[in-house]
Amino acid sequence: MTTQRFGAGIWHFATYLDRYATDGYGTPRSVIEAIDLAGQVKDLSVVDINYPFFGGDFSNAQVKEALDRNKLGVIGITPEIYTREFVKGSFTNPDAGVRRRTHELVTEACDQVRYFGADYVKLWPGQDGWDYPFQVDYGTLWKHSLDGVGQLASENPDLKFVIEYKPREPRVRMSFGSVARTLLGIEKIGLPNVGILLDFGHAIMGGESAADSAQLAIDYGRLFGMDVNDNYRSWDDDLVAGSLHPIEIFEFFYVLRKNRWEGVWQLDQFPFREDSVATANHAIDFLKAADKGLEALDVDALKEAQSRHDAIGALKIAQKALFGAM
Amino acid sequence: MTTQRFGAGIWHFATYLDRYATDGYGTPRSVIEAIDLAGQVKDLSVVDINYPFFGGDFSNAQVKEALDRNKLGVIGITPEIYTREFVKGSFTNPDAGVRRRTHELVTEACDQVRYFGADYVKLWPGQDGWDYPFQVDYGTLWKHSLDGVGQLASENPDLKFVIEYKPREPRVRMSFGSVARTLLGIEKIGLPNVGILLDFGHAIMGGESAADSAQLAIDYGRLFGMDVNDNYRSWDDDLVAGSLHPIEIFEFFYVLRKNRWEGVWQLDQFPFREDSVATANHAIDFLKAADKGLEALDVDALKEAQSRHDAIGALKIAQKALFGAM
Amino acid sequence: MTTQRFGAGIWHFATYLDRYATDGYGTPRSVIEAIDLAGQVKDLSVVDINYPFFGGDFSNAQVKEALDRNKLGVIGITPEIYTREFVKGSFTNPDAGVRRRTHELVTEACDQVRYFGADYVKLWPGQDGWDYPFQVDYGTLWKHSLDGVGQLASENPDLKFVIEYKPREPRVRMSFGSVARTLLGIEKIGLPNVGILLDFGHAIMGGESAADSAQLAIDYGRLFGMDVNDNYRSWDDDLVAGSLHPIEIFEFFYVLRKNRWEGVWQLDQFPFREDSVATANHAIDFLKAADKGLEALDVDALKEAQSRHDAIGALKIAQKALFGAM
Amino acid sequence: MTTQRFGAGIWHFATYLDRYATDGYGTPRSVIEAIDLAGQVKDLSVVDINYPFFGGDFSNAQVKEALDRNKLGVIGITPEIYTREFVKGSFTNPDAGVRRRTHELVTEACDQVRYFGADYVKLWPGQDGWDYPFQVDYGTLWKHSLDGVGQLASENPDLKFVIEYKPREPRVRMSFGSVARTLLGIEKIGLPNVGILLDFGHAIMGGESAADSAQLAIDYGRLFGMDVNDNYRSWDDDLVAGSLHPIEIFEFFYVLRKNRWEGVWQLDQFPFREDSVATANHAIDFLKAADKGLEALDVDALKEAQSRHDAIGALKIAQKALFGAM
Repeated sequence: MTTQRFGAGIWHFATYLDRYATDGYGTPRSVIEAIDLAGQVKDLSVVDINYPFFGGDFSNAQVKEALDRNKLGVIGITPEIYTREFVKGSFTNPDAGVRRRTHELVTEACDQVRYFGADYVKLWPGQDGWDYPFQVDYGTLWKHSLDGVGQLASENPDLKFVIEYKPREPRVRMSFGSVARTLLGIEKIGLPNVGILLDFGHAIMGGESAADSAQLAIDYGRLFGMDVNDNYRSWDDDLVAGSLHPIEIFEFFYVLRKNRWEGVWQLDQFPFREDSVATANHAIDFLKAADKGLEALDVDALKEAQSRHDAIGALKIAQKALFGAM
Repeated sequence: MTTQRFGAGIWHFATYLDRYATDGYGTPRSVIEAIDLAGQVKDLSVVDINYPFFGGDFSNAQVKEALDRNKLGVIGITPEIYTREFVKGSFTNPDAGVRRRTHELVTEACDQVRYFGADYVKLWPGQDGWDYPFQVDYGTLWKHSLDGVGQLASENPDLKFVIEYKPREPRVRMSFGSVARTLLGIEKIGLPNVGILLDFGHAIMGGESAADSAQLAIDYGRLFGMDVNDNYRSWDDDLVAGSLHPIEIFEFFYVLRKNRWEGVWQLDQFPFREDSVATANHAIDFLKAADKGLEALDVDALKEAQSRHDAIGALKIAQKALFGAM
Repeated sequence: MTTQRFGAGIWHFATYLDRYATDGYGTPRSVIEAIDLAGQVKDLSVVDINYPFFGGDFSNAQVKEALDRNKLGVIGITPEIYTREFVKGSFTNPDAGVRRRTHELVTEACDQVRYFGADYVKLWPGQDGWDYPFQVDYGTLWKHSLDGVGQLASENPDLKFVIEYKPREPRVRMSFGSVARTLLGIEKIGLPNVGILLDFGHAIMGGESAADSAQLAIDYGRLFGMDVNDNYRSWDDDLVAGSLHPIEIFEFFYVLRKNRWEGVWQLDQFPFREDSVATANHAIDFLKAADKGLEALDVDALKEAQSRHDAIGALKIAQKALFGAM
Repeated sequence: MTTQRFGAGIWHFATYLDRYATDGYGTPRSVIEAIDLAGQVKDLSVVDINYPFFGGDFSNAQVKEALDRNKLGVIGITPEIYTREFVKGSFTNPDAGVRRRTHELVTEACDQVRYFGADYVKLWPGQDGWDYPFQVDYGTLWKHSLDGVGQLASENPDLKFVIEYKPREPRVRMSFGSVARTLLGIEKIGLPNVGILLDFGHAIMGGESAADSAQLAIDYGRLFGMDVNDNYRSWDDDLVAGSLHPIEIFEFFYVLRKNRWEGVWQLDQFPFREDSVATANHAIDFLKAADKGLEALDVDALKEAQSRHDAIGALKIAQKALFGAM
């Protein structure tokens, strides 16, 4: 019996706004309120926390206290390098001053990782990239991406840095846009403490098979984290995991398990219009079913079918295991 | 020589926020400030104004004064039926109270149309639709869409109502999602004062050929308005018109002109990271070149090529006219 | 207990070629051989047959005999209005002679429908449309589409005609491209014997929610047929039903059942590299599970959740019913 | 003044078939006939030739003679590792015998490269990949991809091998699917004579900015070839270059020129329904205009705008240069 642990980005329990509902999809919540909601989810062990803390001026101790009373640990800290200051880029901003400010903010996030005993600094450079043809010099942009991450990683060898790639949004084209591009960059940086956080939804919206992406990142020793959600394959809808593509997400978990990858299964969902606790619970119920499904999977028969690239045979085995567990 | 008039949504001159840059892509601006920026654009005649007015508590007279000093007319009023109150739907909200509130807000917008002497009330029910399979009863949802619009149109026979369809965003699936779906709905409503506002970008992100969509709406006598922008065909990026798909936008204008459709050519761009006046000027320069290109177009030769479905021949004629004018 | 009947396009049991594997994905098969393969599938009752018959010069009697020995009926006849003669269009060909030839071929197919006692002539005008901007006059093209279908329907009032819409392929843009566009056209034709054949895969590749498309077609009294398969939402991959999007296909069946739509559940799969009998069997196993799932569905609870647009609540009910049945 | 050379895949001058028009979009042509058509194109210097030769049993000498009389050189040889024998994969086929046969066929193609004095063997493993989740073991598949290419490259150190990546088609998911994935693989192979052939259309259908892809491949010293065409960004339509995305293709050429990349500008178009010579001529006219546009481009002003990521400023400069040249 496995004892799979589950986690979530703390923003799962915030409320959201967008360019139309500028007054938000609900009343604003502070990070403390979000943690208290996270605490209501069954079987949630850890959270990833944005830095600076949202919704008020809280000390580390206050956040720690909220986490403790909800029996939650911290898996990662996500510095907000995508807010107003950084809308023309964080690591790749044309202004050297903003690039420095990015470095400072992430450096502060490093201290938060140390304070909370988290596993990693999560880098999600959502504003790094371009919108139009001819807008940027691609070589310079990519160099700035790698230099920025590389400098932080070399200055903080005691910490792990994970890059969460995504094809687009908010930037129309993001520089760390696919699993392979990110691995290329990480290999160029050449440091042991830089890896990938693989978001299932980002992979499928980019036309990747997430399970293949996971295998590739694992083969390079760079899969440091993951999270799940679902979408209609063309945009990061951040819907509840398992709602649209249960078989592909099951395959993603299968590849992790097969490679003895033992990290946390995290949620990165944005329940704009749904109850956030109910949404998280429903997702974790699906994840537990997938976990049970992996126990039930006839791995030998699956491998035999795969050795012949027998799609229907393999699918039958996988569907039986997953759906039987639900 | 034509004397084509140009317009823009007043939000073109606002600043934006999204779910990541929650503090905004710039300091907030009031509708008055936006109007003063619009006034700096060369050759802008009219604007479409959101209601309620953003950025402060302004009277109609104050807005009128700002418009007058910038020599701008009002083409349409866009009631904000997509803010917090309406995030689970406006016309299709499951709560009858919110549906009533939608009706009230649009009714207020009708008075604004009368006050400003605008051409129409613009309905953009961006939250009407669904996110997940099984979430809604589709028949009921569609009925609510048509009932809501139909009631307003029949109560205000002196006004025109335009529906701006869009496949998605903010709702993952929008009920008025394509030109044909919207025409079906309008025919069902059966009133003369309901039409379509065709957004070039919404058409191409939905896999439509915008020129074909325009022809169809015109053939039903329902093309009441239009606006342009550009995107990478999978999301409503609202980039500057002509930046990515100059030939298709030129064809769109060609179909309008060919049918003697003489409305305003409007901009619906969101310059998140660009200067809004420069972006509008650049777009209007492109629109003027397209206008000149239409004058230069060898229409007889084009029609002859089209009568044979001769793609290369037709393209050659169109490219020559457009690029020669730029 | 329902007694759902199942069908398949006979091409499911053919072999294929494409622009790269020009020598085909397997040795060619005649329609007779395909029928004999179809006969090996468990629980297949009817097939849709291409006309002219492929793979040889067979008489109706020979085809009938093959069907009889395999206990198969004919649900539809699909005239091949998309082969070499028609690559620049069938109903919309710029050459009036080819438009006439289209009419003749479909008229011959009408006699086949009568001979085999099939339910309908299936029209799939895959070459009608355009590839490039400026290539065609959209108004003329659409008129030809409607005139061509309308003439056939009025000349053969004893028969039903179904239009299978599809966004694209082989034509880059197809004229009958979406459910709403096709319904608009059918309403314009205004005859009772023209309807839609809704292909689940065509709907989702066009960004439709297939269940919504079905409801709309039913509300217009125009859903005359359907078939299923699966794809990655951007192209008509014609993969095995249920392999990627089991929940959405289940919702599609739910909407049919809810509206007491009692037609055949057909397969339109192209097992390029798989065994065609095994692929059909696997799909029908899934369809039977979906059928059982509909029996198990707590419809009252679902409707209650839908009345509140409660996505998570509704999804939970649907997943339980479907997965419990598998 | 540059003296840019132009080329084309010889299949540009063939006729095609697909899974619907199984009798083809025109009467079959032999490679000799195709070469004679290619010879009618103005300013075509070289062709890429499929091996085995299509349409008959021709000797090298016969092909050479046809090339000579049309004053055409050979830039590359494309072994047909995607026909019936290879539909379940070439380098990645589950059957070791087929993998060996792939090796043999490509080895024969090497001799053709030597015979014709071509620049490279082009590898386009269009059948290598998967269609369904769970179908393959991704690690094994990728290893086979790299082993297969690596063995050939090490056995033929006198030749260059170019991999033409593509996201999909005919395989639903291709193993060499993006520029970054292919570079990762090439770096792993670690031989100097393996590079990329970058197809503009494959890049944009995969959501890449082709100019960025080119810069990346150049920075790794791996851009060995390129070709152009156009499409609607979601499928490899292989339409005429410049018809839909003139600005992005101009940017692609700009990045090549800026890096002093001096290879042939090739066409990879499939004029299914168009005259192939007219289509090639129209494309080359566009390419020449782009070439002239590069001469006219105000590079200093462009670089200055790019140093500020000034999208509108940069676009203005680029549009002026391109459109002024047309």
